[in-house]
Amino acid sequence: MRPSGRQPDQMREVEIIRDYTCHAEGSVLVRFGNTKVICTASVEESVPRFLKGKGQGWITAEYGMLPRATGTRNGREAARGKQGGRTLEIQRLIARSLRAAVDLKKLGENTIYIDCDVIQADGGTRTASITGGCVALVDALTHLLNKGSVKQDPLKRLIASVSVGIYKGTPVLDLDYPEDSKAETDMNVIMTQHGGLVEVQGTAEGETFSREEMDAMMDLADKGIKALFQEQQKALGW
Amino acid sequence: MRPSGRQPDQMREVEIIRDYTCHAEGSVLVRFGNTKVICTASVEESVPRFLKGKGQGWITAEYGMLPRATGTRNGREAARGKQGGRTLEIQRLIARSLRAAVDLKKLGENTIYIDCDVIQADGGTRTASITGGCVALVDALTHLLNKGSVKQDPLKRLIASVSVGIYKGTPVLDLDYPEDSKAETDMNVIMTQHGGLVEVQGTAEGETFSREEMDAMMDLADKGIKALFQEQQKALGW
Amino acid sequence: MRPSGRQPDQMREVEIIRDYTCHAEGSVLVRFGNTKVICTASVEESVPRFLKGKGQGWITAEYGMLPRATGTRNGREAARGKQGGRTLEIQRLIARSLRAAVDLKKLGENTIYIDCDVIQADGGTRTASITGGCVALVDALTHLLNKGSVKQDPLKRLIASVSVGIYKGTPVLDLDYPEDSKAETDMNVIMTQHGGLVEVQGTAEGETFSREEMDAMMDLADKGIKALFQEQQKALGW
Amino acid sequence: MRPSGRQPDQMREVEIIRDYTCHAEGSVLVRFGNTKVICTASVEESVPRFLKGKGQGWITAEYGMLPRATGTRNGREAARGKQGGRTLEIQRLIARSLRAAVDLKKLGENTIYIDCDVIQADGGTRTASITGGCVALVDALTHLLNKGSVKQDPLKRLIASVSVGIYKGTPVLDLDYPEDSKAETDMNVIMTQHGGLVEVQGTAEGETFSREEMDAMMDLADKGIKALFQEQQKALGW
Amino acid sequence: MRPSGRQPDQMREVEIIRDYTCHAEGSVLVRFGNTKVICTASVEESVPRFLKGKGQGWITAEYGMLPRATGTRNGREAARGKQGGRTLEIQRLIARSLRAAVDLKKLGENTIYIDCDVIQADGGTRTASITGGCVALVDALTHLLNKGSVKQDPLKRLIASVSVGIYKGTPVLDLDYPEDSKAETDMNVIMTQHGGLVEVQGTAEGETFSREEMDAMMDLADKGIKALFQEQQKALGW
Amino acid sequence: MRPSGRQPDQMREVEIIRDYTCHAEGSVLVRFGNTKVICTASVEESVPRFLKGKGQGWITAEYGMLPRATGTRNGREAARGKQGGRTLEIQRLIARSLRAAVDLKKLGENTIYIDCDVIQADGGTRTASITGGCVALVDALTHLLNKGSVKQDPLKRLIASVSVGIYKGTPVLDLDYPEDSKAETDMNVIMTQHGGLVEVQGTAEGETFSREEMDAMMDLADKGIKALFQEQQKALGW
Repeated sequence: MRPSGRQPDQMREVEIIRDYTCHAEGSVLVRFGNTKVICTASVEESVPRFLKGKGQGWITAEYGMLPRATGTRNGREAARGKQGGRTLEIQRLIARSLRAAVDLKKLGENTIYIDCDVIQADGGTRTASITGGCVALVDALTHLLNKGSVKQDPLKRLIASVSVGIYKGTPVLDLDYPEDSKAETDMNVIMTQHGGLVEVQGTAEGETFSREEMDAMMDLADKGIKALFQEQQKALGW
Repeated sequence: MRPSGRQPDQMREVEIIRDYTCHAEGSVLVRFGNTKVICTASVEESVPRFLKGKGQGWITAEYGMLPRATGTRNGREAARGKQGGRTLEIQRLIARSLRAAVDLKKLGENTIYIDCDVIQADGGTRTASITGGCVALVDALTHLLNKGSVKQDPLKRLIASVSVGIYKGTPVLDLDYPEDSKAETDMNVIMTQHGGLVEVQGTAEGETFSREEMDAMMDLADKGIKALFQEQQKALGW
Repeated sequence: MRPSGRQPDQMREVEIIRDYTCHAEGSVLVRFGNTKVICTASVEESVPRFLKGKGQGWITAEYGMLPRATGTRNGREAARGKQGGRTLEIQRLIARSLRAAVDLKKLGENTIYIDCDVIQADGGTRTASITGGCVALVDALTHLLNKGSVKQDPLKRLIASVSVGIYKGTPVLDLDYPEDSKAETDMNVIMTQHGGLVEVQGTAEGETFSREEMDAMMDLADKGIKALFQEQQKALGW
Repeated sequence: MRPSGRQPDQMREVEIIRDYTCHAEGSVLVRFGNTKVICTASVEESVPRFLKGKGQGWITAEYGMLPRATGTRNGREAARGKQGGRTLEIQRLIARSLRAAVDLKKLGENTIYIDCDVIQADGGTRTASITGGCVALVDALTHLLNKGSVKQDPLKRLIASVSVGIYKGTPVLDLDYPEDSKAETDMNVIMTQHGGLVEVQGTAEGETFSREEMDAMMDLADKGIKALFQEQQKALGW
Repeated sequence: MRPSGRQPDQMREVEIIRDYTCHAEGSVLVRFGNTKVICTASVEESVPRFLKGKGQGWITAEYGMLPRATGTRNGREAARGKQGGRTLEIQRLIARSLRAAVDLKKLGENTIYIDCDVIQADGGTRTASITGGCVALVDALTHLLNKGSVKQDPLKRLIASVSVGIYKGTPVLDLDYPEDSKAETDMNVIMTQHGGLVEVQGTAEGETFSREEMDAMMDLADKGIKALFQEQQKALGW
Repeated sequence: MRPSGRQPDQMREVEIIRDYTCHAEGSVLVRFGNTKVICTASVEESVPRFLKGKGQGWITAEYGMLPRATGTRNGREAARGKQGGRTLEIQRLIARSLRAAVDLKKLGENTIYIDCDVIQADGGTRTASITGGCVALVDALTHLLNKGSVKQDPLKRLIASVSVGIYKGTPVLDLDYPEDSKAETDMNVIMTQHGGLVEVQGTAEGETFSREEMDAMMDLADKGIKALFQEQQKALGW
């Protein structure tokens, strides 16, 4: 039934490669099927103005897509002179989600920038970005610990994310682009390692969805995210 | 327990005034307690380029806040030279939600702009904008019908929205600013008159939320939105 | 002769409502006939860089129009990414005029922002903004006095403004939009309560104007502005 | 009494050099004392969109200052990424004024761009721009006539402009920078060759001005502008 | 003598991987040592306005760097709202160089966008971009030929580029970042497969360079570029 | 053979006028035939942030063109809201070149802005800007010495620049616009008074160039620049 031949509750193959580039404190290539995102975590020993002197740190994120990450070329945002609404929305979501992974007090007056750059897109770029970005974040926190810049590990828990949706009337897990572009409903779920919900964003396209469909999607998301935590832990060697 | 003394499942007083300004095809002042938003619906007899010649219409939205709608003055976005991420996110949400109210085919090659300008803010500006914007939209559709520009009423159903959240551990309905700024979780729910879900956006701040809490919030939202449909219908004289 | 049936020297009905919104130190809805402007005055306890340490304050202004304040929708300046020349010109005029109301030395190192947002336009938005903005300014100054932030009242005098013009060969007072769009000459006059001229801006459209016509317009303006001072004082309860 | 030793009703030396640069259809260097402006008039055989197909032409203007035209260096507007409010206000004034010189119907569907670039500033740059820009405009109109692009001369009359003000209590003509920066009132007057007023813009700085002072300034302006018409005609060889 | 231990005339290891991402008509990862650039070639069946109807095609290029491609994080150009001078300079160079590879007449009214995105930087990003971009370009041209969109192969010749410089007084080939940041002179040379020079850009930093040094650098560049043509051909399977 | 009738090794008439405008510390009109550029040098007693506290100065440059410096009007960069790639490239080149003239340590914590504004263009605007800008720079350095702001003369040597190219197969010196627009190769060479090369930028247009042609062009450039040093010294009265 699914264009990819997957079962409704089957995720795409996931791959998380650490140390993908050499300069960043954390650098991960995350792959959800054909979706590939480079996630880097960069440490800056200062905080934004609104946090100066408050003895806590900050996590922020930026998201981009190479112009030809997609089937037809998208104009470069740097050339157009501004980031679009979709970009801003996604990077706000990534940052908000990853802040839930960290005890900002323990981070001290440090800022971690998570940069997620999609080099190949096939649906689910924001969920892959959060999942991969969290691993890059862990590496950056370890770097700070090893360097002695922070005394106690600021990591509270891993965060991961997956999309679910209603495709041709059936709840499905981890939509790829052919599904995403035709799904009746698309929902992104972000959870912590301990099962708490961090963010839920469900949107109907054309058709509305019911409480029962929402429950079914939440069940699928729960299953998918558990698998993602295993991939993150495997990559981290935990 | 709530700063306003309201019961957990009690909404603020809601008021919907039609024909608030004189030029727009639909013009509504919507009030949720101290939150006041002017919502206008403007008809333009053309469609964006990507819809040219497809025989369907479009609904789009823009959102703004007067600089002193809030407790401290916010810089004017026009002066800063760009709309912030929060603004873009809200106006994308309003437009997406209100498109669910309309049969775009029946609308023909017309565009309706929904402008939501907050003149006084006290939490819930996006849910008030959707709820009031829907009434302005109905007036603009009636205008098109009366003028003969569309043959059949494009309105499929009313749309309304309310916020729910977890405040001091308790699920509450229709958060005002003092609650919103301290809530553990904040969720915006958008539904159709017939009970279908159009959008659900839940965000944890600091603490995560559970499936049970999500269910309790959804129940509250359902109750609140039903009351809003009554207010919309009363305002429309249905 | 006038589209509205008014006498050449007759102003539109004027209304000045204080405390129109709840957050600003001064908040006024001013109405000149169908022209309605929300004017707020916001206090900030600092001054722009060029005045730092000079022991004086500053008055600045910003002007905007809701997209559908006018007969056809105008693109939102925040979305277009810049304020147009007309907007900049008007807000410079408002700020310059209202600075004539205040002893900036007595104001101390405080800045007052006057925000004038047109919610419904029918000609004369800049003159209404100045007239209403002055009342909001008075309220903000009183707030500073009551709070003890300034020792002596910085208000030197009230400022008000009206437009005059030559319409179908006749000098007329307080042009509405149907007149303004066809007038041969349009002049904005700004005066103090004590009769001094603060600013005069007269522009011919197509036809030029003579010194005699200019004198006749100045006489009308003088009459109109006297009436406006009475409205301001009535609103202020003086 | 005046810093320059001039009489109150004495203008600075005025020079108008045609064909100052070689590419433009009209190219003038205008000098009012130490104020020097290059004014070019460029013809484009089309009109802005709002005039397409209406059988008439358009005059528009742009104004700029070299960064070091002034005593201290001003940041380049192209580098800052936008034209300031003062620039936009001046170029709107120049364009509006010069449109009064031309019968736009006779101009046909042609646009003339007037570019005024200040290479050295000492007060009065906008009045010099209008006065010099008019001569460049005449040359461009002659070019169109000679080429046969227009059948009848679109020139209705010359336009010129001068500033007047109240300096140390005395009305003075053609303020230079030392006067302008200290004047109580500054007024720019724009007139046609036939004595009609095109625009009057008077602004009080600190002190207000009276009707009597306004009359005295208008008399001075009238005298100064008559002298400017002679300079324009001399330059044009009329 | 060189930080990397290389001989003065020794290039870094070069790798050119085709089909690196799946959507673009040409997609190459090029590596010069630790410098890694993703180069894609995208076909658009139209030409810029200035070429409409002239029966020829166009090659254009855009260049970007992931924020953490470098040792310290660089602000994202999309977030800053404009491309910097260095970026614009490099992308103009890439486009100009690659146009020398193609017979634009044979390309017909097609545009090829070359996007070069640096994912890891260690000196020589512009020379790697040109060298890798040329291979992506060849693949896009082959795609057009295979599809029948062009009749004759528009490729005239391969183009490659290398940097040379004077480091501690010695001419060296293919500078990495530690050398580049300390070199007295830095020169980028771009050549065709047939030995013709396309572009030479040499810049002294602090010290000047002599004609003899320039000759020595040109000899090294010639040697390096010959090796690059072999890598390009090997990658292309020629 | 050349459109101007000049010999291949013949420069255009060069003129360097000092003190062209009255406010800047250095102000030069430089003319290469019909190319005319106003170059000013402005002193600011501070340095950019990245140099604060390092005890050295800085030279920066900005370049602009009046809209009608060219045969057809170019849109004003300030109005378009950004400087184009060509402008940024040229001003980076001017600044880099002129820094080679100065001992930045001896300059102390001062910045000199070189503004080059083309008032009439006929090819070679960047080479004229560098040549004239150097004279303005010398005047600004002398100003600092005379004022006692610097103790030792920071000038190390004069810098000048000329263009060379291959026009109809022949190497030619100092291309004007008719040559430049048709030349097969265009090269800009920048040298010091003592014969050292500061920058070489050669670009083939369509045809490539050979090492022999490059040598011939370098010989011509050497000759032309020697003549320019004489003009600079004559203007400076050395």
